[in-house]
Amino acid sequence: MIYLDHAATTPVREEVVKEMEPYFTQYFGNPSTIYKVGREAKKGMEEAREKVADLIGAKVDEVIFTNGGTESDNMGIKGVAFKNKDKGNHIITSQIEHPAVIETCAFLKKLGFEITYLPVYKAGVVKLEDLKEAITDKTILITIMHVNSEIGTIQPIKEIGEIAKEKGITFHTDAVQSVGKIPINVHELNVDLLSISSHKIYGPKGVGALYVREGIRLEPFIHGGGQEKNLNSGTENVPGMVGLGKAAEIAKKELGCNMKHLSNLKEKLINGISYIEEAYLNGDIERMVPGTANFHFIGIEGESLVLLLDGNGIATATGSACSSKKLKASPVLKAIGLDVVKSHGSLRITLGPENTEEEVEKVIAAIKTSVERLRSMSPIWNNRK
Amino acid sequence: MIYLDHAATTPVREEVVKEMEPYFTQYFGNPSTIYKVGREAKKGMEEAREKVADLIGAKVDEVIFTNGGTESDNMGIKGVAFKNKDKGNHIITSQIEHPAVIETCAFLKKLGFEITYLPVYKAGVVKLEDLKEAITDKTILITIMHVNSEIGTIQPIKEIGEIAKEKGITFHTDAVQSVGKIPINVHELNVDLLSISSHKIYGPKGVGALYVREGIRLEPFIHGGGQEKNLNSGTENVPGMVGLGKAAEIAKKELGCNMKHLSNLKEKLINGISYIEEAYLNGDIERMVPGTANFHFIGIEGESLVLLLDGNGIATATGSACSSKKLKASPVLKAIGLDVVKSHGSLRITLGPENTEEEVEKVIAAIKTSVERLRSMSPIWNNRK
Repeated sequence: MIYLDHAATTPVREEVVKEMEPYFTQYFGNPSTIYKVGREAKKGMEEAREKVADLIGAKVDEVIFTNGGTESDNMGIKGVAFKNKDKGNHIITSQIEHPAVIETCAFLKKLGFEITYLPVYKAGVVKLEDLKEAITDKTILITIMHVNSEIGTIQPIKEIGEIAKEKGITFHTDAVQSVGKIPINVHELNVDLLSISSHKIYGPKGVGALYVREGIRLEPFIHGGGQEKNLNSGTENVPGMVGLGKAAEIAKKELGCNMKHLSNLKEKLINGISYIEEAYLNGDIERMVPGTANFHFIGIEGESLVLLLDGNGIATATGSACSSKKLKASPVLKAIGLDVVKSHGSLRITLGPENTEEEVEKVIAAIKTSVERLRSMSPIWNNRK
Repeated sequence: MIYLDHAATTPVREEVVKEMEPYFTQYFGNPSTIYKVGREAKKGMEEAREKVADLIGAKVDEVIFTNGGTESDNMGIKGVAFKNKDKGNHIITSQIEHPAVIETCAFLKKLGFEITYLPVYKAGVVKLEDLKEAITDKTILITIMHVNSEIGTIQPIKEIGEIAKEKGITFHTDAVQSVGKIPINVHELNVDLLSISSHKIYGPKGVGALYVREGIRLEPFIHGGGQEKNLNSGTENVPGMVGLGKAAEIAKKELGCNMKHLSNLKEKLINGISYIEEAYLNGDIERMVPGTANFHFIGIEGESLVLLLDGNGIATATGSACSSKKLKASPVLKAIGLDVVKSHGSLRITLGPENTEEEVEKVIAAIKTSVERLRSMSPIWNNRK
């Protein structure tokens, strides 16, 4: 298999599995207990917290473990909204956020909050003038993603954070698609809250983290025993946390090397695809993470292309995995100006460090053949010519 | 080590770890994707769902995977409350619920819901007359735990369910401490919602399930990609789910045998402790799960006893792990009539299938020695004599 859907999920690294294993059977205690096997579990959990903090330049006690990136987003956004509802009811986000942010904002809207969705234009990037204009006296939160999961564009988080800081508005960023892919330092980025997912960086599923800057107060998202500073009640998923910690450690160590490797692979990929007639890259190539490339091919259905490639042992996607079951066109591609037909002809390829040049060559050839085959059956394509 | 805190957490069974392993590295796909490695992950997840359904006599699509027992409680209780807030605002629960229920109810109270906390008397069991009297036209939810985590008493869930059904009120039970310990069938128990935790039945931490009877509608707890019937958004924790499935399968197979073994061990334990002066069992022994025994010893501090036993390689607890960091007396022991002094002298022992008669003998001897040592230093004890 050639796996090219790293934005959907990644395999857990062998070193990560190995690190987790003793916490299933040996250091299995509940970290809230005071006896030895509980203390050992707690120690593993706190060491993991240090590693996550280290990856993003945070203090250890600014890292709250969650059950995944979606929960991090829910916890951060709802936490700010409910805590500050007497101060204001206005939230600013963008048109291309992940469903975890979009749907959370929609839920808050039903409860009386006002939501502004900033446009991203053809490049897939928000404009600072739009943000400045959108801010009102009632604005309590800005939540704008770091890197888009479908087209890979990077938002100007540092500059957005400066504006937020100046206005005294809390700033959250969903960094699920940027952590471990580009360098991240929460202070340089001027963020107050930052969401992390483990399974996007070769850690286990079902665990994530929320960076919460010292001094930022959140209403708890989940109620119970008060674990994780009362923000994420429930017995801690120690093996998951330990796995995320190890994945963070590896991500930090290998970041520079991976970025170079992925940039090379993507250049090769884009160059190869450019020889296919009427094939286009979506988003602004100058403002993208190294591993992501989203194309559209005139005259075909992206889903059919994914299935043909799957038949060749190649795993790719049309859009984000979280939206793949819904048959409607991608809101992200719509936001960057693609019409429904072009949007349905899109293919997302997200490369990972273990991909090789030979794999990319095979994939280019398979895409070429598959696109030709689909176009030969496509009335849109054939009527077009 | 002799581990006697199975109500806090359990080690993951070797068979469970083995079943999970391929889902970390081999069948690692995102189950929302359509290519092979995604379909394999989805298959594992759905097979696990069948096993969980099978353990509790539910239909497969009545099982919603969650991130743990606390989340199951939050999802069920808030889901009913928000969905039915136009019908009524009254919720009935008991005084001895887990913090996941107590704190969720406290949160809803702040939002305008009314909560009735039924008393449990000396036996630790609610009375049906009290429940009937508490029901009003505004009652939308009854949430009463199946088995208490501290004293092990079993509530009359079947009878409570009959009353709820008759009145058309949704009925939720936190079955985190009963699943895998006594036989459970959601139809016989007349429940609409039932919370399950994986790590209490030798499965991994960070995963659980909520049984949602067909036709019961809940407001989603977490917003995003719409996974788990829109109730638990976020990329599914497939290895965790597979682990819970395997743990459920084992729990079902070994249930009868375990109950007999644990009953024998507990009888031996209670008999041994009965020779210690001024030592008492908390709760009604006739209405308890096999593995749980909660004692109080006059004149000592439970926490000191736990620490002395830990020094002998024996892991026990004073109360539930979720409350152990709070220095206030256990609300459960208070509810069954223990004063603060007696309550602080309590020790919870929760046995597991891997415990042996020899271990129980050692534990009795260690408790006897430790209690004597603590009493020799205790002004309360010495002034008392």
